Amino acid sequence: MSLARPDQIGEDALIAEFLAPLTAGVPGAFGLRDDCASLTPPPGMDLVLKTDPVRAGVHFFADDDPADIAWKALSVNVSDLAAKGATPLVYMLAISFPEAPTREWVRAFCAGLRVAQDAFGCRLTGGDTDRAAGPLSIAVTAIGTLPTGTMVPRGGAKAGDGLYVSGTIGDSALGLALRSGSAAGAAWRLSDAERQALIGRYLRPQPRLGLAEALRIYASASMDVSDGLAKDADRLLRASGAGGDLDVGLVPLSATARRLVAEHESLLARLITAGDDYEVLCAVPQNAEGAFVREASRAHVPVTCIGRVGDGHGARFLGLDGARLTLDNPGWTHF
Amino acid sequence: MSLARPDQIGEDALIAEFLAPLTAGVPGAFGLRDDCASLTPPPGMDLVLKTDPVRAGVHFFADDDPADIAWKALSVNVSDLAAKGATPLVYMLAISFPEAPTREWVRAFCAGLRVAQDAFGCRLTGGDTDRAAGPLSIAVTAIGTLPTGTMVPRGGAKAGDGLYVSGTIGDSALGLALRSGSAAGAAWRLSDAERQALIGRYLRPQPRLGLAEALRIYASASMDVSDGLAKDADRLLRASGAGGDLDVGLVPLSATARRLVAEHESLLARLITAGDDYEVLCAVPQNAEGAFVREASRAHVPVTCIGRVGDGHGARFLGLDGARLTLDNPGWTHF
Repeated sequence: MSLARPDQIGEDALIAEFLAPLTAGVPGAFGLRDDCASLTPPPGMDLVLKTDPVRAGVHFFADDDPADIAWKALSVNVSDLAAKGATPLVYMLAISFPEAPTREWVRAFCAGLRVAQDAFGCRLTGGDTDRAAGPLSIAVTAIGTLPTGTMVPRGGAKAGDGLYVSGTIGDSALGLALRSGSAAGAAWRLSDAERQALIGRYLRPQPRLGLAEALRIYASASMDVSDGLAKDADRLLRASGAGGDLDVGLVPLSATARRLVAEHESLLARLITAGDDYEVLCAVPQNAEGAFVREASRAHVPVTCIGRVGDGHGARFLGLDGARLTLDNPGWTHF
Repeated sequence: MSLARPDQIGEDALIAEFLAPLTAGVPGAFGLRDDCASLTPPPGMDLVLKTDPVRAGVHFFADDDPADIAWKALSVNVSDLAAKGATPLVYMLAISFPEAPTREWVRAFCAGLRVAQDAFGCRLTGGDTDRAAGPLSIAVTAIGTLPTGTMVPRGGAKAGDGLYVSGTIGDSALGLALRSGSAAGAAWRLSDAERQALIGRYLRPQPRLGLAEALRIYASASMDVSDGLAKDADRLLRASGAGGDLDVGLVPLSATARRLVAEHESLLARLITAGDDYEVLCAVPQNAEGAFVREASRAHVPVTCIGRVGDGHGARFLGLDGARLTLDNPGWTHF
């Protein structure tokens, strides 16, 4: 610590001043003054667990606004809980800094965490901070609850079920192209508002918590779309021991994405294979589709039927010309 | 994946062939084929949560035996659970590889994880794998159970309580010096068996699970010693709003450490300030000390009284000459 610059912050101050307040109202967090957290599980409920670390240079840019980084670190985990039908409860946070962070960075990061945890209805309950060579790394383990035995599986889809996706697909991929200053992105003629909206989809995923109850009640299978719609649809169908036909023309796109696809036809394949959508993909039995769509609408979450579960193995995409689409690169591979 | 060497392994194979078998017997892990894990909490029990990631170059050497790395990643978390009085149940595992690992490395790592989880009585239930620049990083979130409301706090020590430490202190620091090939280590005249025993203490921490029940029943405060006995004792006492006198001459040392200290007096301060002991430090009310020591002995965990809780703030160490010891560097600082 003797080598720290005056604007840098030490571990004890980081925990006591900035992280501990995020545990307010969680008795089992012990104000981050203990070595572990304790959790008295709500009776009659299962816990749903997810850990999906994010790292600078892979999941976000090192110079992103610290509040955006905080939002992303928590939201990508909460997105999984929502897709399983769970309600977020608490989370653990392990951060590894390449060098001691500045007080200003920590202040902005923790303010962002507060906004995110308030939006998602969960609280910090424990974690770890350390310093190691390599990129800034933030590992959240999120814990949600749902009534015992009601977690919506990935592999429960049956032939005949409708395949639904929430929101719009591909905006985040466009936002990433813009955020990274790609040549393609620079060539798109977009208004400032359009640019900001797309970049916002990349920086600030919106977990579909409003859909959790409808999924629990009506969906036979569900997962969040994080590695590309094509790959994730394939996974859901294969996990269900089923195949399915998805119509690319039905995939919901934002107005901006629709216009860009009209101008650059090859973009469409990219939008359904790029990751980071954090929308929900689910299967709903035919006799429940009406009720599911009504519940989703009541929760203000748009859902669109993009295909139907059938036989075979995995996802088959039909292109705009009605012919089967072959995707060179079906989705994000972690390594 | 097209750039992978033939001896490297892809994410899907890593999960299906090597990680999924580690979830056998855990229905909520869904064979790692779902996006989240679910956990039906045992009735009447609290969950105890801990996350303490380990990274190459900080917590282990990149060329350590993969089985040793696996053991360390899990054991440092289980050590915290044990010190809180909890019994390990399940764990989440998030690994970030600097490059796709070889099949041989993965096989050895997962064989090591199996040995570790069998030794600690817990099972893998979920996680994440990805690839990012930087050191190999392994983030475990361990979940244990104990009867509701019985977690042993860090801050419950009262004046008069005896301060106990399990096992022996400082062997791991000596093992690290040997493992890192330090000049000092090379000057110690040690037999091969002595060298191996010390390095083993560094590579393979032994969580004191046998002590968990005795801690729950008898201890007023407890924590594991991971950042150096001096610093951790100071933390336990300050968290308890108390002070305490600890007698360095009473700190339990292995026969090898005792001999080295006799030859190099300055080593003693290092042994009580170096980290990685993964022993338990606890406070026990005077009227329970006899029963605690008997229970510990029945569990085959040696415990030694090294001082007593008193007034003031934090830990005061008395040296071998009876004078108060001033420690230049009281312990491990994470950043």
